[in-house]
Amino acid sequence: MALIVQKYGGTSVRDLARIRNVAQRVAKARREGNDVVVVVSAMAGETDRLIRLAQQASEVPDLREYDSLISTGEQVSAALLAITLQSMGFPARSFLGPQIRILTDSAFSVARIQKVETARLRRELKAGRIPIVTGFQGVDAEGNITTLGRGGSDTTGVAVAAALKADVCEIYTDVDGVYTTDPNICPDARKISRISYDEMMEMASLGAKVLQIRSVEFAKKYNVPIHVRSSFNDKSGTWVVKEDEKMEKVLVSGVTLSKNEARVTISRVPDRPGVASKIFTPISDAHIVVDMIIQNTSSDGYTDMTFTIPKGDLKRALKLVKKTAEEIKAQSVMADENIVKVSIIGAGMVSHAGVASKMFGALAKENINIMMISTSEIKISCVVEAKYGELATRVLHQAFGLEKGDLQKDG
Amino acid sequence: MALIVQKYGGTSVRDLARIRNVAQRVAKARREGNDVVVVVSAMAGETDRLIRLAQQASEVPDLREYDSLISTGEQVSAALLAITLQSMGFPARSFLGPQIRILTDSAFSVARIQKVETARLRRELKAGRIPIVTGFQGVDAEGNITTLGRGGSDTTGVAVAAALKADVCEIYTDVDGVYTTDPNICPDARKISRISYDEMMEMASLGAKVLQIRSVEFAKKYNVPIHVRSSFNDKSGTWVVKEDEKMEKVLVSGVTLSKNEARVTISRVPDRPGVASKIFTPISDAHIVVDMIIQNTSSDGYTDMTFTIPKGDLKRALKLVKKTAEEIKAQSVMADENIVKVSIIGAGMVSHAGVASKMFGALAKENINIMMISTSEIKISCVVEAKYGELATRVLHQAFGLEKGDLQKDG
Repeated sequence: MALIVQKYGGTSVRDLARIRNVAQRVAKARREGNDVVVVVSAMAGETDRLIRLAQQASEVPDLREYDSLISTGEQVSAALLAITLQSMGFPARSFLGPQIRILTDSAFSVARIQKVETARLRRELKAGRIPIVTGFQGVDAEGNITTLGRGGSDTTGVAVAAALKADVCEIYTDVDGVYTTDPNICPDARKISRISYDEMMEMASLGAKVLQIRSVEFAKKYNVPIHVRSSFNDKSGTWVVKEDEKMEKVLVSGVTLSKNEARVTISRVPDRPGVASKIFTPISDAHIVVDMIIQNTSSDGYTDMTFTIPKGDLKRALKLVKKTAEEIKAQSVMADENIVKVSIIGAGMVSHAGVASKMFGALAKENINIMMISTSEIKISCVVEAKYGELATRVLHQAFGLEKGDLQKDG
Repeated sequence: MALIVQKYGGTSVRDLARIRNVAQRVAKARREGNDVVVVVSAMAGETDRLIRLAQQASEVPDLREYDSLISTGEQVSAALLAITLQSMGFPARSFLGPQIRILTDSAFSVARIQKVETARLRRELKAGRIPIVTGFQGVDAEGNITTLGRGGSDTTGVAVAAALKADVCEIYTDVDGVYTTDPNICPDARKISRISYDEMMEMASLGAKVLQIRSVEFAKKYNVPIHVRSSFNDKSGTWVVKEDEKMEKVLVSGVTLSKNEARVTISRVPDRPGVASKIFTPISDAHIVVDMIIQNTSSDGYTDMTFTIPKGDLKRALKLVKKTAEEIKAQSVMADENIVKVSIIGAGMVSHAGVASKMFGALAKENINIMMISTSEIKISCVVEAKYGELATRVLHQAFGLEKGDLQKDG
């Protein structure tokens, strides 16, 4: 008998038919003798509907209210799943963030989980019931409702699994697992059977939408095995686990394409100490994540500064940057949304030379110009013109032989 | 400067345009120097949508989950109103039942408010903010979300006003106030300027949908003046207040028609002590409100028992009654949904004879057969065939001269 946390995403609970399907999965795990805790997202489309309402009410809705508004999506799906399970004879009860006490900081709309109390969950499990927890949300020290940002239900799932020391956190989604790249772009893409937390974190941060990155951080920190799988079939999906010796270190595990990128360039920035801090502090204070930063050296006391941010934050960022540019007497600010970021990820890179040059060569062969580059121990990212995004992805997928060979790294 | 509680119903917050209209009303009251606490219902149609979802998930949804589900409606409208007020420059914050601590019993879906804590509300008011409270819901001692039944937001409004000792509870709705009868049935119906708590309670319990009866009970108990008015114009509406000498005692204040009635007859019930208790205890335990009860005397040791209940509870009630009928060896159980209840209400009835006979006479003149009668100090109700409902209402409205004369009882 195991303790399993099952997290179901929005497409898995899109309507009552799918909720019934989820209920049957939960029931199956129970019949097999397991303790089950369920974490649910909002019904697909519901969160977007609520966000539209907020934006119609105000261009910049107050984030405390925004969180209280959009958290209702999971409250609805959790109650519907509980009702469905009960109608099938399974004792289930839904719980909200404040009821379990999923404590977060007060960074509304991008809150971080600080603690998941387990007393109530354990009491429910002990009583033989199936607790259904609303994903994506928590409560701060003041009792305000907070939300965890897009994909936050993954993090709720893993955090609940970590707190309960569950045997596994199953993340149910509408795909069979994590792929070497997006199968819609590259039909040769293959499902990865086993991947390390570090690689998965890079994949998630670089555009693979299958898991929220923070959920993987959590899983790594508390060593929670994640099993990403489809709610529509019984195939084994992708296990995200601690790197171990059994795991063959392939050179490159996956290729990601992120279209959610925008580039901001500030030209003729007076090149003196503290200027970078002046530019980036307000952006960071606004919770906008800056990805790559390039600063050109220049001889005449001026420099150009270029950086990338998520596309959705461009408007807010430009407002801040233009204000700073005036203050520091930079010449001008330009924005470019017509870019994408293509990346290769692999734990094997650390010990292999020549990966970067192979990547650049493959892109050059197709005349794809690289606009920006950033690297870490286990990934290399290139910003290219948006129109080359899909081509670059396919080229790299092939260059590193991801379409062939056994990617079942646990083999 | 006064402390005003404003409660807005579902049609007043139906969409964002109407929510903006509400925000402007709230803003006006604030600009006039008042402290304002707002209580909101769900956007019109939203609660029904959520109830349909629950019923699709299960024919008899678990009521704890049902409450958690449908309480999201007010959470959405409260947040949207707060966002709108903030965008207009007014500091507003939404609060849920558990955040204010609106404590109720645990009778899910028909919970009763036990206490409204005021510390948080007072803190918000002191800080110059406008608290927006979700109507219709509270939290029980276990931290479960509860709802107060249809129209429960009225009760929230009055309970909050009572707890804060507010100067008035304004109930905003889509009609101009309380009418002598339903203007859709009787075009001669006239708005009542001032009515006593007792009369209003009878009106509410007998079919006038403008106020939830429990809200009037609360108002009477804590002596909270209620002002029922339209959110679409600035006309004064109907004041519901303590009966006083200034109030001229008209014979009959209003006529109500309730179509939400069903009749159950148990025939040939063995006529022995304890039989009524056997029949009605399970019904009461199921929170079904029995209205009129008639027991025919009979000479052969058997009696017929007839009673009325809300139409929506008929299915549940029949199940219980059939079980009891078998146990007590009654002959049969019949149900009739084809009935309505027409009532006249007036504080003046107490001291005037002949009101009942005038009522029965007026109905008889139109050949309307009276099936059941019940009376109290200030009302007389008759059950008649459904097809006569509207006619009976008009006949009685005219018989008691409600279409003419000055009904401004504070005149």
